Amino acid sequence: MSADATDQPAAPGSSRRLDDPTYRRAVLELLGLLAHGELQAYGRITSDAAEAPDLHGRVRLSELAVEEYRHFELLRGRLVDLGADPIEAMTPFVDVFDEFDARTTPGDWWERLVKAYVGYGIANDFYREIARLLDPQSRELVEEALLSPGHSEYVVSVLLQATAADERLSARLSLWGRRLVGEAVGLAQSALTRYPGLLYLLELGEAEGDVSASAIISRLMGEHTHRMERLGLTA
Amino acid sequence: MSADATDQPAAPGSSRRLDDPTYRRAVLELLGLLAHGELQAYGRITSDAAEAPDLHGRVRLSELAVEEYRHFELLRGRLVDLGADPIEAMTPFVDVFDEFDARTTPGDWWERLVKAYVGYGIANDFYREIARLLDPQSRELVEEALLSPGHSEYVVSVLLQATAADERLSARLSLWGRRLVGEAVGLAQSALTRYPGLLYLLELGEAEGDVSASAIISRLMGEHTHRMERLGLTA
Repeated sequence: MSADATDQPAAPGSSRRLDDPTYRRAVLELLGLLAHGELQAYGRITSDAAEAPDLHGRVRLSELAVEEYRHFELLRGRLVDLGADPIEAMTPFVDVFDEFDARTTPGDWWERLVKAYVGYGIANDFYREIARLLDPQSRELVEEALLSPGHSEYVVSVLLQATAADERLSARLSLWGRRLVGEAVGLAQSALTRYPGLLYLLELGEAEGDVSASAIISRLMGEHTHRMERLGLTA
Repeated sequence: MSADATDQPAAPGSSRRLDDPTYRRAVLELLGLLAHGELQAYGRITSDAAEAPDLHGRVRLSELAVEEYRHFELLRGRLVDLGADPIEAMTPFVDVFDEFDARTTPGDWWERLVKAYVGYGIANDFYREIARLLDPQSRELVEEALLSPGHSEYVVSVLLQATAADERLSARLSLWGRRLVGEAVGLAQSALTRYPGLLYLLELGEAEGDVSASAIISRLMGEHTHRMERLGLTA
């Protein structure tokens, strides 16, 4: 394949090998972003759990949070396997969600639940989109790390029950969901241009013609709409 | 053993059978207290982790926190095995640490670390003391749940380094440790009289002559002194 391609750029797929330094750097960057994202999600959902109105909700949200921590452990393990220092790989991303969080501070328990479900849903969809740009082995690992164990069913059922009984709450949370998705999509768009590794992966994918930043954003919006419907809310 | 004991109280050990309703209630109460304590420790150490000055500290404290969550899972599993509802078993204890926490709000990162290490150390010692009052099977489970995975080594090494270089910090944290142990011992003493199941277990143990509330408190103080020494602090 590359034998007759010496006078033109290598076919995109051929660069997705971990012995290619540029690709390897991009993968480490992505894994660092994901690992930090999962660590942050664990911390945030744990603090949501502390605000739960009852012990049942506290336990359910804690389960969800610790699952995020397990994702973090998987991703960190992969970084170690690749010979990278996980702390170093995560460091560029320590403030990536800060602005998002500052703009989307939940006003009450319901907004916390919606943010946990919708916000991390969008984040996971985004990670999954980027994973499609990876070599099969890395993609499999990322997809495994993003597998949801179903603890979010609690969030869905509690929210469905609450919004079915209260139209004003339902309207308010629909609005809240729109604000969350707007901020999240803005964050995703800026991440795709801000980090050289992500940009490189995106360019590789675009060269293959089946991936583009706008297609990613459009799929994120579609998934968000489904998610809001599952909560009985208007996207 | 009980055949010739019809005219006097049963030998203490003979009551430690889970088919004895009074003993069973006491065990469920203890497991509920422990499970809630571990769930609370997980939440609190996670929020400590969010305040860590660097990513390395944040990851280390998160490991410690998730280990507490695993203890919670073990204890919850035991409650389920015994046919109890874990939420119901934990409910009486939701506010047990609130007063303690309100009286011991850490002023900075160092006080957080000392509280995480010293506070949960005392709590674990207390749980272990109570476990000695249990039947072998329950005791083994509780002791397994209290096994420390060694993540606290991070706390010790960071604190040792900081206090070795700063005498004023060392003096301040010694004082802080004394405040923590005072509040914790007060909490332990009140728990031993406040909860009927703990009181029952203690009375069983006292009847055997080798356990008393004052002996428990005295051992807690001894362990605390060792722990402070490990941190290079004066108890």
